[in-house]
Parts: sequence; C-alpha cells; structure tokens
Amino acid sequence: MQPFGQVPAYQEGDLTLFESRAITDHIAQKFASKGTPLTTGEPEMKVWLQVEVNHFEPASSQLGWEQVFKPMFGMTTDPAAVEANEAKLSKVLDVYETRLSKSKYLGGDQFTLVDLHHLPNIQVLNGTPTKKLFDSRPKLSAWIADVTARPAWSKVLAMQKQ
Amino acid sequence: MQPFGQVPAYQEGDLTLFESRAITDHIAQKFASKGTPLTTGEPEMKVWLQVEVNHFEPASSQLGWEQVFKPMFGMTTDPAAVEANEAKLSKVLDVYETRLSKSKYLGGDQFTLVDLHHLPNIQVLNGTPTKKLFDSRPKLSAWIADVTARPAWSKVLAMQKQ
Repeated sequence: MQPFGQVPAYQEGDLTLFESRAITDHIAQKFASKGTPLTTGEPEMKVWLQVEVNHFEPASSQLGWEQVFKPMFGMTTDPAAVEANEAKLSKVLDVYETRLSKSKYLGGDQFTLVDLHHLPNIQVLNGTPTKKLFDSRPKLSAWIADVTARPAWSKVLAMQKQ
Repeated sequence: MQPFGQVPAYQEGDLTLFESRAITDHIAQKFASKGTPLTTGEPEMKVWLQVEVNHFEPASSQLGWEQVFKPMFGMTTDPAAVEANEAKLSKVLDVYETRLSKSKYLGGDQFTLVDLHHLPNIQVLNGTPTKKLFDSRPKLSAWIADVTARPAWSKVLAMQKQ
C-alpha cells in the first residue's frame, strides 16, 4: 500500500492513500460537514501548512529522533545534533511567537489541520528538555495548552496508552 | 513579507503569500480556467505532492547544494554527503520508475503541479554526475524529457539566462 514501506497508509473502498498530510487533507475535506471543520481553503492556511512541513517538521522530528527514539532503540543521543536542531527550531518558534500574537491559530482564526499537524512532534518533545523552547515563549505556550487540551487529542493519547 | 527571510514571496493586492508550494497552489486554483489546468483536486495528486516535498526535495536539494551551490560560493563539496544523498534519492527514483510505468505523470494522467514542483531540482541535477540516476531509469528519463520540453519551462530557463 505504501511504496516507501512507511506508515501510515489509508484505505477507503478502492482509494488507497499514503503520506499523512495527504490523508488528513482528504479526511478533512470528505467529512467537512461533520464535527469541527479543519480546513478553510484559504491561501493563508496553505502557506502555514507548508511552514509546518518545511520548517517545523525537520528540526522537531530530528530532536524527537535523537532524544526519544534513539534511546528507545538502544542508540546514543548525539548532543551536537540536539544543539544544532534546537538552534533551527528556535528560529522557527520565534516566527510562530510573532504569528500567534496576530492570529489565534497558526492557519488563521480557527483551529485547522495546520495546528493538528504539529501535535505529534509537540507531544514527543514535551517529554524532553527541548520543552524549554516552548515554555520560554508565552504566545506559543498558550497555543500549545489550547491545542493539546482538545478532546479529540485526548482520545488519541488514550488510544496510544492502550 | 517572508518571516523566514527566504525567497519567494508573492503579493496580489492585499494578499501576501510565501512558501513556493502554497504560491503555486494558489495560482493554479485562481487561474484554473486559463491555460493548462495544473491541479486535479484528486486525493491521489495530493499524495504525490507530499511525496515530492518529503522524499524527492530533501535528497535532491542536498545534492544540488553540495555539487552546484557550494562550489558557486567557494565551498568544498562533501563526497560523503553526495554518496549518502544519492543513495536516498535512488530509493525515491525506484518508486518513481514504478509509478511512471502505471501513470503518465506523477500526479495522475495529466501534467500537474506535482510534476512542475520537480523541475527546479531536476534542472540543477542535470548539470551534475547525479544525472546518472535519472539516465539509468527508462520511464523516469522519458518523463523528464517530456516535462522539461514544455514551452512554459523553456520560457523560465530563457528568463534565467537574461
């Protein structure tokens, strides 16, 4: 189902999808009328979808790999990689702090896929010293408190613990 | 205009956009009725848009940086980085070779933004030894010949030479 041999893959009748952000986009559009709409279709939202993929994801996933997943697999964290990626992530979070002083959510004034796409990496990094980069930015911290308190996210975390 | 201090940024009246792939998406939707339609709106196309961002772009942009841009700035190419990224890119191109045996273009049966987003990195790598990874794959080579021969792309290249 997934030519790169990765998770996730998604099947719905004859339709098979892979790439997590294409799957969320499809689900958000298909079920737009049910529950919270997660997409505005505005160009502004699409800009910030790209910011997550191109700026937040690379640095934050490396930090999760070094500090959470490498130890889990019996490998050793590389402090130089942590330092370099924290420097990269700090620059991204400075942009977010400014953005969140003008806009309630990253994609605009409502919660969208932009915010949702950040949750997995935030969850991983909240259990590491990198959390200090979140805590030192007040607008960002308030946004993290808001988006991680959503009932749907609590359900995801409860499922992970099962 | 661009909070990360990068190019490109795009202005259209009161609307300011950044992130190249959000800009192309906006332009493709806004001018869908003029010229070649570049988006199908199908979930399949969105999957392959993500494949370009998450798989093709990282390896190919590193290869361009090492072999074209570093020398341009008087810096030295790192052969180990070239080797590692050629190994990554080869795996991606194997997936593309399979894809292009079933589908005329990467996003489906018509030329779309998926194909277009590959053109800059392909152009850069065509002037490097990494071109061998393209030449050794017949379906991929035929697709590259097709997409780089499009008149709009010739115009872009002509503008770059000015």
